[in-house]
Amino acid sequence: MSRDPDFSPVPDRVVTSDEERAELFRRAEELLHGDDIEAARELVMEMHGADAADLFPRLEESARSAMLGLLAAEQQAHLIEHLDEEPLREVVELMPRASLARILDLTDYDVAVDVLKMLPPSESVRTLSGMQTASEVTPLLRHADETAGGIMTPGYVALHKEMTVQEALSFLRVRRPVAEEVYYLYVLDAKNRMQGVVALRQLVISSAGTRIEEVMNPDVASVLPGTDQEEAAQLLQRYRLRALPVVSEDGVLEGIITSDDIIDVITEEATEDMYRMAGLYGEETVFSPLQVSARRRIPWLIVNVATLFAAGGLIAAFEGTIQRAAALAIFMPIVAGVGGNAGIQTITIVVRGLTLGEVEPHDAQRILTKEFLLGIIRGVVFGLLVGGIAYAWQGAWAWGVVVGVAMMLNMLVAGVLGSVIPLTLKAFRQDPAMASSVFLTASTDILGFFFLLGLGSLLIDQLT
Amino acid sequence: MSRDPDFSPVPDRVVTSDEERAELFRRAEELLHGDDIEAARELVMEMHGADAADLFPRLEESARSAMLGLLAAEQQAHLIEHLDEEPLREVVELMPRASLARILDLTDYDVAVDVLKMLPPSESVRTLSGMQTASEVTPLLRHADETAGGIMTPGYVALHKEMTVQEALSFLRVRRPVAEEVYYLYVLDAKNRMQGVVALRQLVISSAGTRIEEVMNPDVASVLPGTDQEEAAQLLQRYRLRALPVVSEDGVLEGIITSDDIIDVITEEATEDMYRMAGLYGEETVFSPLQVSARRRIPWLIVNVATLFAAGGLIAAFEGTIQRAAALAIFMPIVAGVGGNAGIQTITIVVRGLTLGEVEPHDAQRILTKEFLLGIIRGVVFGLLVGGIAYAWQGAWAWGVVVGVAMMLNMLVAGVLGSVIPLTLKAFRQDPAMASSVFLTASTDILGFFFLLGLGSLLIDQLT
Repeated sequence: MSRDPDFSPVPDRVVTSDEERAELFRRAEELLHGDDIEAARELVMEMHGADAADLFPRLEESARSAMLGLLAAEQQAHLIEHLDEEPLREVVELMPRASLARILDLTDYDVAVDVLKMLPPSESVRTLSGMQTASEVTPLLRHADETAGGIMTPGYVALHKEMTVQEALSFLRVRRPVAEEVYYLYVLDAKNRMQGVVALRQLVISSAGTRIEEVMNPDVASVLPGTDQEEAAQLLQRYRLRALPVVSEDGVLEGIITSDDIIDVITEEATEDMYRMAGLYGEETVFSPLQVSARRRIPWLIVNVATLFAAGGLIAAFEGTIQRAAALAIFMPIVAGVGGNAGIQTITIVVRGLTLGEVEPHDAQRILTKEFLLGIIRGVVFGLLVGGIAYAWQGAWAWGVVVGVAMMLNMLVAGVLGSVIPLTLKAFRQDPAMASSVFLTASTDILGFFFLLGLGSLLIDQLT
Repeated sequence: MSRDPDFSPVPDRVVTSDEERAELFRRAEELLHGDDIEAARELVMEMHGADAADLFPRLEESARSAMLGLLAAEQQAHLIEHLDEEPLREVVELMPRASLARILDLTDYDVAVDVLKMLPPSESVRTLSGMQTASEVTPLLRHADETAGGIMTPGYVALHKEMTVQEALSFLRVRRPVAEEVYYLYVLDAKNRMQGVVALRQLVISSAGTRIEEVMNPDVASVLPGTDQEEAAQLLQRYRLRALPVVSEDGVLEGIITSDDIIDVITEEATEDMYRMAGLYGEETVFSPLQVSARRRIPWLIVNVATLFAAGGLIAAFEGTIQRAAALAIFMPIVAGVGGNAGIQTITIVVRGLTLGEVEPHDAQRILTKEFLLGIIRGVVFGLLVGGIAYAWQGAWAWGVVVGVAMMLNMLVAGVLGSVIPLTLKAFRQDPAMASSVFLTASTDILGFFFLLGLGSLLIDQLT
């Protein structure tokens, strides 16, 4: 949305049903491939930026260029504000450099910063120098992505503490702030150091002569510009704050983070966790081009092949045992699979707890104890179940013992490693979701096969 | 937080570092188990509701009762506003029924509704009749959880369209609304039907004599009370709205949903998807009691045992083949495992796309085509890789063919089923995350073993 969403807070172009949106997209694709340029222009110009950004990656190459060509600067700005990183990169490449500065002047500051960072340094400098909002955007460029400074907006409204309520309201009326967020007004001193905060609502209901100092709240939680965006998100979410000020080491208010910014952070972080647990790295959606998807998905599968060949090597060491009791092969995937899935359950709960900030590092011992006990319970239940079936199927007590004990031991491994792996990664300040499941299933495979085939070797005479 | 967060928008009790919070919790646990009741009371009374709610499930049974006993009604209200479902149930059971009505009067309406729904019907009615806010809470009771009506707040601020800006501001000053959200003011007619919306900021900067009708935006997107909460969340997030009005079929404004409500919905839905993909059902955290965790995790593992025994049955049919060429057992977990993980990658991307509303049902064909092509690419890459290693290891071309072709076919299965399973569940209006990975890994296990052992049987003379 534009930098000033308030004047049209709920635009009429909002499409509320999936069917309607599918129809809109169908029509747009048709028009963008057809000859009726005026009809196509009218349709895409009337689209909400969010819908345009949703349509864009679905279009063929030629239709994408056509769509960009039809949009006025303002609509192009709305489009890029809603695009994901990958299609955004593409749009920026397609855009004539001459008009880029003008379009970035019309976008949110944080999006302008993202685009400038995508450009080669020389082009970035040239574009920035052509922008009217250069003085607002430049200070934001030095903050890293995924930090509080990287997602904050400098568009806050500042008051002075000596003002009266009447003066503050007049000031707002004259200034007509285009700030993204005027829910809270920040009170600064002469050196831009933050003194307190006052809600616009508080201002409206206070009597005219009251001094701002008297109605403001001087205790304001804030974060540093370098604070991780996930940490800032947790703080806003935990304490249900509407906005969180970003304040430099020397107390200067640099910007604010609002609940909108946080919604995107929360969604991104959840996607990242899910992707990493499935061995997916980098941004990818169902609409990513084939070669991008192939490049993103294959590396982790190669790691996976390596761990599976390690398990294969272990099996090879027991080839003689399998030759004598081929039915052991039946139980290999069962012992390894149930163990792996039990471990994935544990990992998922621990990783989610860490991501949501529900689990602190000092909870490690409590979690380990619980998962160890749960490993015993699950071990006994599934040892008896799977061992019992093995006994009934193969008709010898030794089968029940070998399969049942291997299953039980693997369940213990699953519970312990399912909690140890993410907690260890966290302790070393790594992402606990990262490759957790690779390490885990490699362990439950290798150890599961080892327990089963090792016990099978010991009792081989009873199995055959 | 209380129903009126604006007067203390950023309370000083906010704890911004994990270490500080860990220390706070350690001290609280110590005091709650000790004898210095006054020190314990002081500490827990000063805690933010969010921190109290985070501490509570970590405490032992006795300390929980002690903590509840020390909190005044207002602090108890803050606590239950921040609790998850499972510990909330426990608190409600521990609370004397006599004080429950008074505490619910102090909580957010939607939390009061959740608590009333937890009680047996007769107690619910008795409690409600003792509440001063009964008239506000009662209409909310008829909306199902997880709908727009279930998460909305009735605390919006309404203006009449004939008012002037001056009158509206005076009205706000006199009424001193304790509404959760006065960012937007809703304009109603005499029958409470919504006519439009005006931002508080717009009001503040408009000249005094302007009529509300002239400054309001008459086009307001809204949802019905029965709309799924996930759909409402997607709408707010997609169009970056601050608030979304909930309007009945006959146009009456029943409440609003704000971006705060949505943050919780988004987090819950992401957790649910992650849990379901890992075969976890119901609410569970690392702090859930052991027996709850055992009950929640074991059922899906039993389903998993069943699918793995189906795979085991298939292997049993090839027992003779394995006896002749035991090295086939080495490649079983590799072919099945790489296929399963490739399928999980696909499923994760499709499920996430569906959850975020990026994927519409009519995208099915495009997704299937892409994943089929990707299946061929991954099939060729991993067929050659794994087949090549098999050939080099076992020293016969037949091993390369059997393992490589089985790997390639299983990759195709993974790509196709990885997209077909969640899209089919969605088409039948089921949760696409639900048990997706069970069906998938069962398929890649069974078919992977079938390809490998089937081809192995055909070429058995070349393998030995």
